[in-house]
Amino acid sequence: MVKVGIIGATGYAGAELVRILLDHPEVELTTITSRQYAGVPFPAVFPAMTNTTELICESYDMNRFCEQADIAFTALPHKLPMAFVPELLARGKRVIDLSADFRFRDVSIYETHYQAHSAGDLCKKAVYGLSEIYAEEIKNAVLIGNPGCYPTSALLPLLPLLRKGLIDPRTIIIDSKSGVSGAGRSPSLATHFCEVNEAFKAYKIASHRHTPEIESQLSHAAGNPVKISFVPHLVPLNRGMLTTIYASLQTETPEKEIRNYLYDFYKGRRFIRIYSEDNFPNVAAVRGTNYCDIGLKLETATNRLIMVSAIDNLVKGAAGQAVQNMNLMLGLNETIGLDHAPFPV
Amino acid sequence: MVKVGIIGATGYAGAELVRILLDHPEVELTTITSRQYAGVPFPAVFPAMTNTTELICESYDMNRFCEQADIAFTALPHKLPMAFVPELLARGKRVIDLSADFRFRDVSIYETHYQAHSAGDLCKKAVYGLSEIYAEEIKNAVLIGNPGCYPTSALLPLLPLLRKGLIDPRTIIIDSKSGVSGAGRSPSLATHFCEVNEAFKAYKIASHRHTPEIESQLSHAAGNPVKISFVPHLVPLNRGMLTTIYASLQTETPEKEIRNYLYDFYKGRRFIRIYSEDNFPNVAAVRGTNYCDIGLKLETATNRLIMVSAIDNLVKGAAGQAVQNMNLMLGLNETIGLDHAPFPV
Amino acid sequence: MVKVGIIGATGYAGAELVRILLDHPEVELTTITSRQYAGVPFPAVFPAMTNTTELICESYDMNRFCEQADIAFTALPHKLPMAFVPELLARGKRVIDLSADFRFRDVSIYETHYQAHSAGDLCKKAVYGLSEIYAEEIKNAVLIGNPGCYPTSALLPLLPLLRKGLIDPRTIIIDSKSGVSGAGRSPSLATHFCEVNEAFKAYKIASHRHTPEIESQLSHAAGNPVKISFVPHLVPLNRGMLTTIYASLQTETPEKEIRNYLYDFYKGRRFIRIYSEDNFPNVAAVRGTNYCDIGLKLETATNRLIMVSAIDNLVKGAAGQAVQNMNLMLGLNETIGLDHAPFPV
Amino acid sequence: MVKVGIIGATGYAGAELVRILLDHPEVELTTITSRQYAGVPFPAVFPAMTNTTELICESYDMNRFCEQADIAFTALPHKLPMAFVPELLARGKRVIDLSADFRFRDVSIYETHYQAHSAGDLCKKAVYGLSEIYAEEIKNAVLIGNPGCYPTSALLPLLPLLRKGLIDPRTIIIDSKSGVSGAGRSPSLATHFCEVNEAFKAYKIASHRHTPEIESQLSHAAGNPVKISFVPHLVPLNRGMLTTIYASLQTETPEKEIRNYLYDFYKGRRFIRIYSEDNFPNVAAVRGTNYCDIGLKLETATNRLIMVSAIDNLVKGAAGQAVQNMNLMLGLNETIGLDHAPFPV
Repeated sequence: MVKVGIIGATGYAGAELVRILLDHPEVELTTITSRQYAGVPFPAVFPAMTNTTELICESYDMNRFCEQADIAFTALPHKLPMAFVPELLARGKRVIDLSADFRFRDVSIYETHYQAHSAGDLCKKAVYGLSEIYAEEIKNAVLIGNPGCYPTSALLPLLPLLRKGLIDPRTIIIDSKSGVSGAGRSPSLATHFCEVNEAFKAYKIASHRHTPEIESQLSHAAGNPVKISFVPHLVPLNRGMLTTIYASLQTETPEKEIRNYLYDFYKGRRFIRIYSEDNFPNVAAVRGTNYCDIGLKLETATNRLIMVSAIDNLVKGAAGQAVQNMNLMLGLNETIGLDHAPFPV
Repeated sequence: MVKVGIIGATGYAGAELVRILLDHPEVELTTITSRQYAGVPFPAVFPAMTNTTELICESYDMNRFCEQADIAFTALPHKLPMAFVPELLARGKRVIDLSADFRFRDVSIYETHYQAHSAGDLCKKAVYGLSEIYAEEIKNAVLIGNPGCYPTSALLPLLPLLRKGLIDPRTIIIDSKSGVSGAGRSPSLATHFCEVNEAFKAYKIASHRHTPEIESQLSHAAGNPVKISFVPHLVPLNRGMLTTIYASLQTETPEKEIRNYLYDFYKGRRFIRIYSEDNFPNVAAVRGTNYCDIGLKLETATNRLIMVSAIDNLVKGAAGQAVQNMNLMLGLNETIGLDHAPFPV
Repeated sequence: MVKVGIIGATGYAGAELVRILLDHPEVELTTITSRQYAGVPFPAVFPAMTNTTELICESYDMNRFCEQADIAFTALPHKLPMAFVPELLARGKRVIDLSADFRFRDVSIYETHYQAHSAGDLCKKAVYGLSEIYAEEIKNAVLIGNPGCYPTSALLPLLPLLRKGLIDPRTIIIDSKSGVSGAGRSPSLATHFCEVNEAFKAYKIASHRHTPEIESQLSHAAGNPVKISFVPHLVPLNRGMLTTIYASLQTETPEKEIRNYLYDFYKGRRFIRIYSEDNFPNVAAVRGTNYCDIGLKLETATNRLIMVSAIDNLVKGAAGQAVQNMNLMLGLNETIGLDHAPFPV
Repeated sequence: MVKVGIIGATGYAGAELVRILLDHPEVELTTITSRQYAGVPFPAVFPAMTNTTELICESYDMNRFCEQADIAFTALPHKLPMAFVPELLARGKRVIDLSADFRFRDVSIYETHYQAHSAGDLCKKAVYGLSEIYAEEIKNAVLIGNPGCYPTSALLPLLPLLRKGLIDPRTIIIDSKSGVSGAGRSPSLATHFCEVNEAFKAYKIASHRHTPEIESQLSHAAGNPVKISFVPHLVPLNRGMLTTIYASLQTETPEKEIRNYLYDFYKGRRFIRIYSEDNFPNVAAVRGTNYCDIGLKLETATNRLIMVSAIDNLVKGAAGQAVQNMNLMLGLNETIGLDHAPFPV
């Protein structure tokens, strides 16, 4: 049994990691940390977990943590991981970081949009953990920059088509809609029930920090700098993210051919479900799962391809993909611990 | 007191008309009809209305209706109004129709997307009831084709800019999100609570019948046929519609100038609220009101203008705009009966 | 025009007061205060109010406030009003306080459940603002202790029956369910969207501070100390409160007779709607209104009377009843400013 | 591998059975039936299940069904199972029926509240499937009358105390609140999103058919006829049921002693979680699980015990308990297939 630990286990993504790892048949979750809840049994923070685990939140101590875990998941606000990760790697641990700190090969992009990076040299070493795209690199990685939820939902439909040259990179518009758990568990007026319920809004228009993350990946795929328009919205539901993507075709291509190309590209990758003609994803169908559902429609009058993807922002958009990456790093089937039958409602 | 009646008062739009007209100080709601609830007191259908009205739903009888009402609101599924309206006009009544039957000047577009029209000659006579755009024509109209909710939310931000030539009509993408009341009150699996709650999806991608309605108006404004991409989504909330619009600028124009142009265009029109820089609409802020809130952002990296509008789909998107049109037709201030202070939550 | 002001206008109850008073035809809202938002235009705090008011939140200054207002609404956390109210009364102002500070004639009950009272002598002078029960006293009051939301929903159905001796006071059980706005606007984990949505719980079982408020009023009506069981629950909706009440009949009485007694008791009081046999309230039917809907069922097998009441916790449970009380104090019809047609959905 | 089948797999309870049984390591789900969706692949009815199962809904044919399954789950509206079950038993199959048809030992109670029973002789043979209470009988049963959701949530806290004589059976009041999936998947106005969302109501007050089911069990435990007051309410959420129970103590007993008695009574039964002092259940903590959480508070002023239980109405209230019963019937650990780590949010 591989021993794993979570640094920052009491945010929504961290707690979701606890859920998945407790059920995982090939690893043992040995230690969890939380500044806010140090000394508190995990079920006292998340009562749902009563009877499921005896784990107690600890304050982070590197020595103790390293004794108990071979793989570390860091589920912390960005800036914190860059302080912890170098030592963990120096001790021979492998790290899957859910923050933005190691998602950019080019550290200058990170520094432009976030802050100065104190471990910039590691950025080149880190592998971007988009499991279906970078599986080979992930297998040998010691440090994973686990993708953001919005980038995951946008890149999985877009990257294959961009690599293939099917769409015009100058025309990409990404209109995303996220459930509220994406905003984290810290209370704020913006996440107060009465302010979100019966409400719907766009936010951080043309200024969200997932934009450079998406653009980096698209640029890499296109071989040229790609600029997109990206607008996130907040949906009054707990989990789920739907992304609607618009892009013009480079040359006339039948819808069926595009769909078949995606089928082939993701062949054998269980968590990608390509929808058949005139069927489109719904976040309800991926709730609690690691699936990324993708539908598409070619609008002939405008020559635009419209794609819709759905993920659970806490699973494929965070903790689930992190575990999928761990599976790959351990040489396991990527679906282990992630393939429960979905809820019908 | 002008006497008004509603044909089809027990759908959501019809009931909203009842609510607004009961409080309207210049008209008297004298008669309401409903096939399904003929003979039933209105508060037995909508218990909220107990003590507010004694009106009883009647089955539609033209003679009786015409005796009791000078202005008729028809809030019926399309196809039904085209059968009723000619006679109402022949009797000298003025009609505000909330269906699609009289929204198209060019009846062939209607017939392509809906069905054969039995009163096609009236289509040319009808005025499209987008109050802030066609106020002058509405004042003298005898028949109003009241706009659809999606078209209202898309056209109010777009039409001024298109008329002015600021945006490239070939680049318009409209990504809309609607509350569930827009789907009507008839039960169906698609509106079952458990299927909508904690769910979010796109539907009728590139095939919604509001697309030709929007395109007709845009084409008229541009002086050329305009094709758009339009994708509607379903949000788990009762009321509200948010529309995110993407379009490329024709020539470089500062954001401030575009905003000022909109301010000027809608000057004196109380129901249009143009948001200041970096502020964007939320459907919560227009709930229960006749406002259309508009925010905008110029994304310089892509030269794209991103606009966001918010309306209450049952008010500005249906019954409220219908009453606003009635006000205009009666020579009243357009805000009468529609200017209650909004709910803070 | 009577000039009124609100001290504490940016909580949910305070903002609801703003909404109602702005539309009130007989008073002018001249001043609003807010510690947190001093200097900020009210619409910047509640964007829904844009175009509706130019009022700017002020920090509280007694002299300035007294120049601008003849009637003061205090919508503050308890403990604060007891510091402000004595001076306001000394200046000849009339005060309607929405906190618990002046709801208890017997200040010792307050001090047991809240804290020491610095203006205890005023408690006897204050009138408990349950409008339909104490209308005569309210008309001449200078200080109103406006009832809590739970007490309003429980007392309006119970008091008439208890006064009449129809129910056994030892058997009263009150099971209440409240929307989230009752918890106030301050962010906390307990009101975080993801913690409330898709959740339902009881809280403060047998320890909520509205229990002594209800018991005080029931004891007064019964002429003897009454002890109840009261359990509040949190419902994932913004506005609304439903209270289910169980009590044994003192002597066999037909359901119809009880219903008729309630009809008669509340005759002419527009905001009380007694439901007919086998019909029961729904918070949706009172949303945004000042109604208190009451249904009842006599369960013959157990000789228990089951009553259900529904109010909007922010209107009849707070701001609406406060304005109703103001109307009574001003000698106006109690319904003025509160009788808009309700929303059908 | 034991082969199991589901008759009626496309309602919410049936689909939840599919979910649980597909993941169950000791049984194989071989056949599912649905009148409405005969011939349709299950994932076409519940898209979440895409890639998870190849099962196709079949119309029910007894011979074919009996060839494919050794254990039958019937998840049909009541009245239908009584027609199918006798033949299934005659063929040597074991049956777990989720309807009300076999929940009453005394068929006359069923016939009073439902309809004539065509297989009344089987009622005595059937075991009431409240797993923790009747485990021994269930192990040897051939026919299970799986409990209703409300009865499960009420009986698990009440039965031990009633058996022990701790509470006065004449004083039991059960105030229950259920999520909407309990109303089934058939569309109706009562389950229309806009009618349920932002709404809350009681229904079938003193007339719900789960009342006799609860009373039968309580009477059996008390050794005397017990009459209760039971009021169900509808909560705007998909899954979950919270039940608040009030009962007077027979003799003074410390809260701690009652809690300890419950602990002991349910010792070793993993799905019952008794909460510690001043902690109370929330449906969010049992969502998607087979837990029944129970909290309690002794109100000394009234000598009343207040208990709160929470279950997921589709799991412990239906499909989960059915599978738990199957486990018991097969001699397996009752938790198999039901012990996934719960979702933190």
